[in-house]
Amino acid sequence: SKPQWEQVGEAFVQHYYNTFDSSRSNLGPLYRENSMLTFEGEKYMGVQQIVGKLSALPFQKVQHQIVTCDCQPTQTQPSGILVFVNGNLLVDDSQNPLKFSQCFYLLPDSTNAASYWVHNDMFRLNYG
Amino acid sequence: SKPQWEQVGEAFVQHYYNTFDSSRSNLGPLYRENSMLTFEGEKYMGVQQIVGKLSALPFQKVQHQIVTCDCQPTQTQPSGILVFVNGNLLVDDSQNPLKFSQCFYLLPDSTNAASYWVHNDMFRLNYG
Repeated sequence: SKPQWEQVGEAFVQHYYNTFDSSRSNLGPLYRENSMLTFEGEKYMGVQQIVGKLSALPFQKVQHQIVTCDCQPTQTQPSGILVFVNGNLLVDDSQNPLKFSQCFYLLPDSTNAASYWVHNDMFRLNYG
Repeated sequence: SKPQWEQVGEAFVQHYYNTFDSSRSNLGPLYRENSMLTFEGEKYMGVQQIVGKLSALPFQKVQHQIVTCDCQPTQTQPSGILVFVNGNLLVDDSQNPLKFSQCFYLLPDSTNAASYWVHNDMFRLNYG
């Protein structure tokens, strides 16, 4: 069976993109005040900035399709999980998926080690 | 001026790809026994496995062109640097670059905080 960090990472991205694609203004609980987002090179920090940026993206409908999802644990204190996603993004009624890559670094909640939050988030579209 | 973790991350990837493209069997000093590589979904751990895999890749000439390089610090112990690269890969005499994404997690040397090693490395080709 898969190692736990891989199960956690894969479950996280499913939940993350399901939330993003249905109502991305609800992503707040996954971030914290010291979370960082680099979105197409622009830097945001903290729940309000990050969710504000994601909520303001100029599309009505969006769908993330995960093509690959790679996970690795880290031997730091606390021990985190790196999640590296490559996939397709369908925006509004476009028939042409955009390719994206995204890297998350998840850390456990200090009071509930089974619960993870996004410390780092870096997103790029891969233009063809 | 750029924050130090960004300078470190950008200098690292320049050095990494210069070494990779000139003589990738010399990448060993950048990894350690608890380094992890996930290369196109295949997992490797430790200097010997990682450098063995990279050295055995079936091309003679290779050139990485960095298109974007995003860096973020992490607030763990020790504090590390995430480096997220998107770029083009030219292999042998092909005129058609392959697109790649790669995510590194760098940690400082415990005895020389100015020196970083690769704790995590995840690589994917982005097929068009």
